[in-house]
Parts: sequence; structure tokens; C-alpha cells
Amino acid sequence: MRHSASHVMAEAVLSLFPDVKFGIGPAIEDGFYYDFDLPRTLTPDDLPVIEEKMREIIKADLPFSHREITRAEARKLFASQPYKLELIKEIPDEKLGIYEQGNFIDLCRGPHVNSTGEIKAFKLSNIAGAYWRGNERFPMLQRIYGTAFDTQKELDEHETLIEEAKKRDHRKLGKELDLFLTPEEIGGGLVIYTPRGGRIRTVVEDFWRQEHFANGYEILYTPHIGLSNLWQTSGHLDFYQENMYSPITIDEQEYYLKPMNCPFHMLAYKSQIRSYRDLPLRWAELGTVYRYERSGVLLGLLRVRGFTQDDAHIICTPEQVNSELSEVLRFSLHMWQAFGFHKYKVYLSTKPEKSIGTKKMWQDAENALRTVIDENKLDYEVDEGGGAFYGPKIDLKIEDALGREWQMTTIQFDFNLPERFDMVYIGADGQEHRPYMIHRALLGAWERFFGLLIEHYAGAFPVWLAPVQVKIIPIADRHIEHARKIEKKMKSRGVRAEVDDRSERMNLKIRQAQLIKIPYMLVIGDKEIADNYVSVRRRNGEQLPAQPLADFLKMLTKEIADKV
Amino acid sequence: MRHSASHVMAEAVLSLFPDVKFGIGPAIEDGFYYDFDLPRTLTPDDLPVIEEKMREIIKADLPFSHREITRAEARKLFASQPYKLELIKEIPDEKLGIYEQGNFIDLCRGPHVNSTGEIKAFKLSNIAGAYWRGNERFPMLQRIYGTAFDTQKELDEHETLIEEAKKRDHRKLGKELDLFLTPEEIGGGLVIYTPRGGRIRTVVEDFWRQEHFANGYEILYTPHIGLSNLWQTSGHLDFYQENMYSPITIDEQEYYLKPMNCPFHMLAYKSQIRSYRDLPLRWAELGTVYRYERSGVLLGLLRVRGFTQDDAHIICTPEQVNSELSEVLRFSLHMWQAFGFHKYKVYLSTKPEKSIGTKKMWQDAENALRTVIDENKLDYEVDEGGGAFYGPKIDLKIEDALGREWQMTTIQFDFNLPERFDMVYIGADGQEHRPYMIHRALLGAWERFFGLLIEHYAGAFPVWLAPVQVKIIPIADRHIEHARKIEKKMKSRGVRAEVDDRSERMNLKIRQAQLIKIPYMLVIGDKEIADNYVSVRRRNGEQLPAQPLADFLKMLTKEIADKV
Repeated sequence: MRHSASHVMAEAVLSLFPDVKFGIGPAIEDGFYYDFDLPRTLTPDDLPVIEEKMREIIKADLPFSHREITRAEARKLFASQPYKLELIKEIPDEKLGIYEQGNFIDLCRGPHVNSTGEIKAFKLSNIAGAYWRGNERFPMLQRIYGTAFDTQKELDEHETLIEEAKKRDHRKLGKELDLFLTPEEIGGGLVIYTPRGGRIRTVVEDFWRQEHFANGYEILYTPHIGLSNLWQTSGHLDFYQENMYSPITIDEQEYYLKPMNCPFHMLAYKSQIRSYRDLPLRWAELGTVYRYERSGVLLGLLRVRGFTQDDAHIICTPEQVNSELSEVLRFSLHMWQAFGFHKYKVYLSTKPEKSIGTKKMWQDAENALRTVIDENKLDYEVDEGGGAFYGPKIDLKIEDALGREWQMTTIQFDFNLPERFDMVYIGADGQEHRPYMIHRALLGAWERFFGLLIEHYAGAFPVWLAPVQVKIIPIADRHIEHARKIEKKMKSRGVRAEVDDRSERMNLKIRQAQLIKIPYMLVIGDKEIADNYVSVRRRNGEQLPAQPLADFLKMLTKEIADKV
Repeated sequence: MRHSASHVMAEAVLSLFPDVKFGIGPAIEDGFYYDFDLPRTLTPDDLPVIEEKMREIIKADLPFSHREITRAEARKLFASQPYKLELIKEIPDEKLGIYEQGNFIDLCRGPHVNSTGEIKAFKLSNIAGAYWRGNERFPMLQRIYGTAFDTQKELDEHETLIEEAKKRDHRKLGKELDLFLTPEEIGGGLVIYTPRGGRIRTVVEDFWRQEHFANGYEILYTPHIGLSNLWQTSGHLDFYQENMYSPITIDEQEYYLKPMNCPFHMLAYKSQIRSYRDLPLRWAELGTVYRYERSGVLLGLLRVRGFTQDDAHIICTPEQVNSELSEVLRFSLHMWQAFGFHKYKVYLSTKPEKSIGTKKMWQDAENALRTVIDENKLDYEVDEGGGAFYGPKIDLKIEDALGREWQMTTIQFDFNLPERFDMVYIGADGQEHRPYMIHRALLGAWERFFGLLIEHYAGAFPVWLAPVQVKIIPIADRHIEHARKIEKKMKSRGVRAEVDDRSERMNLKIRQAQLIKIPYMLVIGDKEIADNYVSVRRRNGEQLPAQPLADFLKMLTKEIADKV
């Protein structure tokens, strides 16, 4: 239906610009587009006119008809359409499919709806420039994007979602709330966390460390560069070099920025003789890695070149694999719940054609993954053959407040590195055995996770994460002293409180605190001092009953502890 | 006296090897050395023989006599000494000084003691190879090191100190206690923190963050690489490039590993318009930086190529400088005290010849530094002209358990970066003003600090820092269950407890726990279970009275909280 809508749009454009040259017009997620070569540049004002034409075509309920023609016929039919001629040249088949509705014919495999009347609800959203074939050496065409749905209600909901997503855009909120910077002076895809964003990161990392220690993990710290030989041993230079940066030369030796933490952990494992009694080892690191991304795909916090992974390697005996895996998945869900995410989808990726490790290892590992998914009663989809060459994996997609899915957690078997680094442990039999290794990134990359957090909460972080939890607002200068006392008391209880002691009007101070989404505001005036009460206001404007400071603190610290 | 001892050693060597060619023989800290070109390689067995000869010369109490001779006389006198002839060639003066005692004459400016009898207590410590003039293109000579003191008591104390320092060597303890690795596979001067070292680092960093937040600091996170332009703006490429690594090329742009965090903080400052109301800003970061060091000088954790600085930048108005500086010094001492260091020495470095900033800025800054040192009643030495070109500084040297000084904290004014990045704030007058900036590294580099901690405590960390605080040792397998219960209880109270459930003998388990310096051992047997008591043993072997677990936990958690 969306593809059909793009043909209707093309017909509408043709009726307005008879000389139009057509590029391509596919359906995309939630909508469609068509690329046009037009005699003049379109403006947003053109969209309602095109929409109007489209409505006429839809009302006329013109049938879509399909036929097959010969290459020669096609060349004749599209004689005045140079882009279509180029496409025809590249189709190997002798017969070419075309679709026709009203006075528009397109080279197209279909399928389409029966007639234009079946297109129920649509909207043209925007115009953008797009190079023919996505290549800047070819002409720039004009692309019109649209959306189409079965009902007006669905279209409206989609529009609302788009609007809501725009408001929540982490790049916009990152600026407004002063959380992070990606200044071009330091280079693309590199992030500076300013104090408010840094505070959230510290709170999250503190929690992350506590939970990891409590769940039997140990924490390692490793450097950001390593000798080329290390990356040769690990196989990264052979199989991952396109994602790595160019080498640094020190004393005639080459070093690489680390794209992963693994090889350092492998060396740490090998620094001691390990016995089956020492296993499982659960080694985690908040390691900042650097991977190459083309500058065109960099996007705020979501696609960056330097990011901090919450990495862990679990090294265990074959007998421990099932319980360790089960524990990893349980722990992952536990962490996501703590951050307010309760909907997940699991993707299981299995053995690809090219792979290392025995068939039995793959079967055992895949079975172990299926078992833990089932135990946790999670929906999952299988990506047959989608595993890495070194082992099967499960990925967790997390659903945010707008129902969007974010791929975050990954749990992967690795049959490769234990071989490459010749990792062994001494079994109960006194013999050397090869351990199993599971890679795991739970929150994934801190950058991406922070982007998700910002968008999920629309910047209104729950109290435990908010960089400033309480803004204390003295009404006049004579109330500042009392406000400071309250601030001190709150700080001594570990609450992040701040006095706004500027000589500004109270309403302005409240508005500004609300704008940067501080969860609570305490307004302090004569009455509050006389009664020894605090007036509490939530960032949504809700006014709580005046109450003794102790009561408010009790409620607040419970909220923080409960992470709500 | 030490210099005279080196001449006596030379005379002794001459009497044993008449064909010896002499290099140089200066006094060094706590001792002396002399370089010799000898017909055969010395062995440690030669040292007592040389010492015996020296004792004879000292007993003879031969006078040291000085005279001046002409260049021609000198060339004749040292005709058979090629190294001395080389030295003579380079002395510009017409008259050359020589010293003579017994049958040894040396080209030497002196001064010396009156006679060999004044050398009271000496010892030859070791032999090492040393290139003539420290240059590997010249011949390798044999260097004999010795120490000399006024009394045998002092010499003995020095020997004990050397022995004690060897035992505490952080490289040795780092291996024995499994704290960190510097594997050659990853490259020189790069450190991996294994779980036990990682745990200590986490405890220290947690404490560091808490204290920084409590003292009005905010925490930033910045990348490890930045565009070359950034380092051009900051001046690092012009003035610091020899300490930086070779560039990494990304999309035809050059990036450098950061040798400092400053430029990123400057950009963060400039991302907003700042008012005098926003100042002071106290911005800290645990930033890992990379600086080039020659491979020959790399030394365990003390001289590395990648290290994590506990950096902070304090940006303030001129009026705030004094109080901020005072606060920084107070905070530094507070932190050092928390880690068990109570003796410091302060070094003040003042304006060098080449410098930027006005005379008044230097005077104000130096006065501010002097004032805070005085306020804190600290001893200090002045290094006239020893400041960086961008501002004066104070360095804090910390004295460890062996009385050795470690230079750790540095507090520096920077008149340079605020200019280079054109940092301004809007004053109360509505005009733009240049803020003052203070750089500060409190613990210095985490690596060096950890080295100091290990050597200061000889690996026996106070309980709050110990990676494992309590080892629970069940006597037989039937006691394991009870031991696990105790472990769980302790862990729920935040205590790092571990059960040793191996089927080994109790004494072996105790000995091994002591070897890795775990502060407390709880031995659990029939009696302990029956009485519901715990038997507590300290790592020094001291046995505490059997007591209820609750009592032990109370004592332990107090010790942890008190950081003793």
C-alpha cells in the first residue's frame, strides 16, 4: 500500500510537472518516498498541492494494472526517462514488469494494491536532496517522503509518535539540559560529558559496579592501546581491521587503539595457572573502545567512534555454561528493570556457514541459549545463520516509552579467543582443558544507553538519576540563609540539592527549574520559616501539601532507594 | 666524604689491577661510584677484596692533597689514561685541579676530606655495566657502587632501609598479591589491573568521587583522542609534542592520544555563556592520558606511558583565587590523611625567565600560594624560577613509612589556556573578564599512587582498602555450610568476605591467607558452630578472643569506616 502511495505521488507530481524525470520510489518503514528530477526546487508549500492531487487520484479509485514487456518495448516506453533507462540496462531479465495506474507507468516488480482507492490515510512529510544512486558524482534529485496507514487513526498516532520522538530527541535534550557535547573541534563521534551528564554517568556506574560485585563479578582496568602483535594474536588485525584506527608508532613498534577489551582480559587470565576450582571467573570492565564509523553515519550518542562498553567475560567449565548463561540473562533483566524498562524481545543468532568450533560446541551453546530464553519465558526470534563466526549469541532489544525497540544487551559465545590465546584450566583430572568463554555487554555502550535513557524519560529522569534532585528557591534574599540550612541538611543525607540564590522572581526560578526537569522544588518564604515547613512542588506543576522537612526527606530518600 | 671514598676505592682497584683505565667517580645520593675499564669482568666476590684494600688505605690515614697543574702537565700525567685525556680536552680552563692520595692521582675539582682516615663507615653494594658517557656507541665500563656514612649505625640503618625497600618493591608485591600486570605483549609502560588491584582501584575511586562531590567538585568524562587542531589551539603540539604519540589518521584528519585532559575541559567551559555567578567551577576527571617515555626509564607503576590522572580544573574570578587555593590545599591534605599519610613537604616554584602573563598576575599568584602554605603551617622550599612558563605552582611531596619522599600532588596556575581558548565570564559589571584557572592533580597519577600505597603498606593494606577483608576458613568439609552463612551475612553488610572451601589443611589455608595479607581470618570448626562464636586471627598472627559474629562485625565495620 505504501509502495502504491509512492506511485500515486509520482502521478500527482507528473500532472503538476509534465517534464519530471523519475528516479526510484520504494516503500520504507512506516512510509515511502520517490526521487524526482524537476525543473525547479520544491518548497514545503508544494506538499499540500501534491497531496490535493493525490487525493483526487485516490478518489478516482484508478486500478493498478501489471504487465510484462520486452526490453525493447521498455526502452521505447521510457525513452524520455534517462534514470529509468539506466535501470533497464541493468536488469538481466528479458521480460520487464511494469505497473500502470491513471496516466503513470512505472518500471516495477510490484506488488501493488488493486486500485488507488485502497490507499486510506497518507501524508507527505518532507522534502530532501538525494543523489541518484546515493552517489555524489551523480545528479542531485529531490526526494519527497510520505507516510501511509490503513486508517486515519493510525496515521494520527504515527504523527503523534514522530512529534513526541522529536521532542525527546537526545541531541536536543542534551543541549537543553546541558548533559553532553559533541564539539566538532575534538572530532566526529567523540563525546564530552559535562557536569550534569557526568553526574548521571557516575550514578549509573556506581550502581553498575555495586550490582556487579554483588553478583559475583570482579572488575578489571586495561589500557586503551596495545601492541599490534596482541591484535594479531586475537585476530582483530585479520578480521576487524576495517573497524580499527590507523596505528600509532612508539619506538618503531605499532600500537592500535583498542576496539575491544577482550585481548587484555585473555592475557590477565593467562598470567596465572587456573584450576577448575577458580572457575567461573566473571570479569567486567567499563572499557572505553574506539571503532571506526564513517562520518556520514555518526548520530549524537547513538552512533559514535569512542564509547564505553560495560563489557564482561565469563570464563567457565563446560559444566558451568548453562547456569552461567542463565545467571547472565537474569542479571541483565534485573538491571533493565532497575532502569525502568520492562519490555524486551530476544533474538537468537545461530551457526553461520563459515564458523569455527565443532558442531557439538555449536549445538550445546545454541541449546543452552534456547534453554535460558525459555526459562525466562521470553519471546524470541531466530536469526538462522546470523551468529558470528566464533559462536552463537542472543541480543536483547529493549522497548522504550514510545514503543520503539533499541538493541542493547548482547550475550555471545566465543570459541575463538580461548583457542587463539591457548587458554586452559587444570581440571579435577589434573589435565589441561579448554574453558568456555561468554562475552557479554549488558547496557551495551554507555553512550547509546544514555541516549536511550534521555529519550525514554524525555529528560525527566527519575529522582535517583536526576543530576539535581531538589532545587531550593528562597522567595527573597532574607530567606537565603534558611534555604542554605535546608540544602546542607539534604546534602548530608546524600540528596543532590541546590539553592537558587539569584535575585530573580520566584516564578522565573520555578519555571527555569521545571525547564531543566529538576524533580522537586522547595519554595522558602516567611510562612515556611515561621511554620518550619517546606512547600514542595513537582516538576509537572503538582503542589504537595506543606510538610515538615523530615517528612519530605523520608519520602524522597525512599523514592531514591526504590529507583522510581 | 662519599666522593673521597670513591677515590679510595679507585686506589684500591689500582693496587689490584695496575692496568686499570679510570672513567669518572662521583658522589651520588647516599653513596658513590667509580667507572673502570678493567682487563677482566668483576664478580661479586671481588667486592670484599676491594673493601679489604680500602680499609687498609683508610687505616693508613693518607692525606688528600690538592694542586693545580697546566694542561700540558695534565696530559703528561694522565698519558696512560685515555678517558681522562678525553675529559682534559673538554675542560676550557688553563689550569686543571688534581687530587692525590697515596699512589692515586685524579683529575678532580674536589673538595675532599683531609685524609682517608676520615672515611668512617662504607660498603660496596654492587657492580653494573655503564657505557662511557652514558652513550652506547662508547665502550662499556664496569661501575662499582658503594655507600658511605659518618657512623656504622647510619650505614646499618641505610642497609636495613634498602633491604626493607626491596621487600616492599611494588613490582614484587604486585606479582605476589596479584594486583596488576605489565605484560610485554601489550607494550611497555601499559598496565592491566587484575581483579584484586581493580578492587582497590574501585574502592579508592569511589572514595575519591564521594569526597569530590562533597567538596563542591563536578565530574566530567572526556575522550582519549582529539583532533590535531585542538592540540594546536592548546599549544601542546608546539610545546609538548615530544611527550605525545604519533598521530592517528581518521578520514584524512589527524588525531592525537591525549597527554592531558585540559583542552576538553576548556571546550566544555566555552559551550555556555558563563557569568560570575557560575564561578567558581571545580571540574574533576579521572582521565587516562598517554605520554611518551623512553623505554629505558619505564619502571613498574612509577614510570609508565598510560596513566589515570585525578585531574581537576578550578575556574574562578580573581577575587576567588585565594579562597579556592586554600580550599584545594586543605582538601589535598584531607585526602592524604585519609590514606594514612601525615608528613608532607611543599615546594613552591616561581616565575621562570621565559613566561607569559603580567608581572602582577605572577606576583598575585605566588603570594596566594605562599599565603596558603603559611596558613597550613607547612614547611616549604622555594624553587626560584622553577615554575612552568604558564604559571607558578606548588608540589607536595609525601613521606612514606620508610621516610622516602614521593612527589604526588601538584597545584598549578595556568595563565596560558584561558588566553589560548579565549575563556571569559560576564562580570557583575556586565563586561567580559578573563577567569583564573588552577590545574590540580591531587593523588597525581593513579598508577604512581598505587605504587606508593603498595610500598607504604608493604602490601598489608588497611581493611578499608584490602581487596579481600576476611577469609573464612572451615576446618573440615562439614563446616563449609556454616562458613557460607557467615560469608553471606558479612557480604550483606558490605564486607568483602570469602570462604576457602578447599579440602586443604587449616594451617595451610591460614598461611596462604597471611601470605596474601588478608587482614582477618575466621576459623570455623565444631566448637565455633556449637558456641555460635567466631575465632578471629589477624594477618600478623595475633589471635583475638573468640566472640559472637555480631561483635566482630561491629569492630570490623568501624575499622572500615575509620579507614584504619
